[in-house]
Amino acid sequence: MSRWRVTLEYDGSGFVGWQRQDNGLSVQQVLEEAVAGFAQERVTLFAAGRTDSGVHALGQVAHFDLQKKTDALTVRDALNFHCKPHPVAVLAAETVPDDFHARFSATRRHYLFRILNRRAPPVLDAGRVWHVPAPLDAAAMHAAAQLLVGQHDFSSFRAAECQAESPVKTLDALTVSRMAEEIHVTAAARSFLHNQIRILAGTLRLVGEGKWPTGRVHDALEARDRSAAGPTAPPAGLYLAKVDY
Amino acid sequence: MSRWRVTLEYDGSGFVGWQRQDNGLSVQQVLEEAVAGFAQERVTLFAAGRTDSGVHALGQVAHFDLQKKTDALTVRDALNFHCKPHPVAVLAAETVPDDFHARFSATRRHYLFRILNRRAPPVLDAGRVWHVPAPLDAAAMHAAAQLLVGQHDFSSFRAAECQAESPVKTLDALTVSRMAEEIHVTAAARSFLHNQIRILAGTLRLVGEGKWPTGRVHDALEARDRSAAGPTAPPAGLYLAKVDY
Repeated sequence: MSRWRVTLEYDGSGFVGWQRQDNGLSVQQVLEEAVAGFAQERVTLFAAGRTDSGVHALGQVAHFDLQKKTDALTVRDALNFHCKPHPVAVLAAETVPDDFHARFSATRRHYLFRILNRRAPPVLDAGRVWHVPAPLDAAAMHAAAQLLVGQHDFSSFRAAECQAESPVKTLDALTVSRMAEEIHVTAAARSFLHNQIRILAGTLRLVGEGKWPTGRVHDALEARDRSAAGPTAPPAGLYLAKVDY
Repeated sequence: MSRWRVTLEYDGSGFVGWQRQDNGLSVQQVLEEAVAGFAQERVTLFAAGRTDSGVHALGQVAHFDLQKKTDALTVRDALNFHCKPHPVAVLAAETVPDDFHARFSATRRHYLFRILNRRAPPVLDAGRVWHVPAPLDAAAMHAAAQLLVGQHDFSSFRAAECQAESPVKTLDALTVSRMAEEIHVTAAARSFLHNQIRILAGTLRLVGEGKWPTGRVHDALEARDRSAAGPTAPPAGLYLAKVDY
């Protein structure tokens, strides 16, 4: 038996999310069926981040165990062949020690949230960005974001259905920068609460539009109450970019 | 009467191309119907580049004449409203002098051709790139490209159905650079022959894969024969990026 680690890109639009669910197709199911098609083995895949429906991945990491003796290039190419026609790609595959766990061994997750900040609707990036037509002040958003970095009780930035034991998380970095018509929000932490980045993005938007003074973000954090923060941004702008081990 | 200039982004995948044709929907038709929906006027749009089916635009320019008195922000927003649900966006609108012509006044067209150069298939950029799995040497491609810059008879890089009077064109710039997994080919000229950039991209690929020595690109040019150049690259990687006036 070998443990395999795979790095994944996917378009989350048409999936119920990473995790298998009764109500539709998941990324997990596509990959588990691809492994079965390739190796005739029923496996379970474990991922670093259980992305929600509509959330994309540029560098999701998952692992699974395989009896079949094979090599890394074959695993990558065969899984890509068997993932068709679903929008899931295996960028890389490698064997890892048996104690590697894609979810529990991860030391940091990096997310990107893309905002298209122009009047015209997204066209080439439809389904890939959050469209915010009003002009956003990226510098003000970045300044507000710095008030959230560090170890805090993020209850205000947590979905009601969040199953984390504690609302205390350490946000290692939260940056906001403009690239022409796009605003990029990047977030890095060992782990996040459910919807945390989407609520952060939805809150920073209020600062960017000038509806909130910078300091109100601090007040929202202190409130430890979901209603004190901004609305949850849509999933289409969110990407699991990279996982550190 | 006012002459309006509009800057356009579109996803060319689902269109027969810019120009109206009997066999399907064109970008031109979408915009002419949007103008009719907004202003109740039947107009004809003229574009800087008559992009083929599947070719995208980041900054296509077109013009039309309107009797209705209105302002630039209204034209932009109203046309975007009336273009829905088609993947066409009006990025900007402005009035121009009556002698401005989107096609004939253009002094230079800038195109971008995107190649996704990795084994795994495109997922988030499906339909937006040309997928070339074999490793490409971007520096060798760039060196070969420089042999094509300048005024030449580009008969070897011209589709059979090209209607240009002369095969002689002046290629102002042709660059190839790598950005992580992507190879970007950029081309600038006052005007291009039909399929010229796609044939250039298809030929430079042969150099990038090491199948052609650099100098063979010069031989292909000298041959003045379509069969001497490489195959025509698919339209999905091509973008009309910008037009100078």
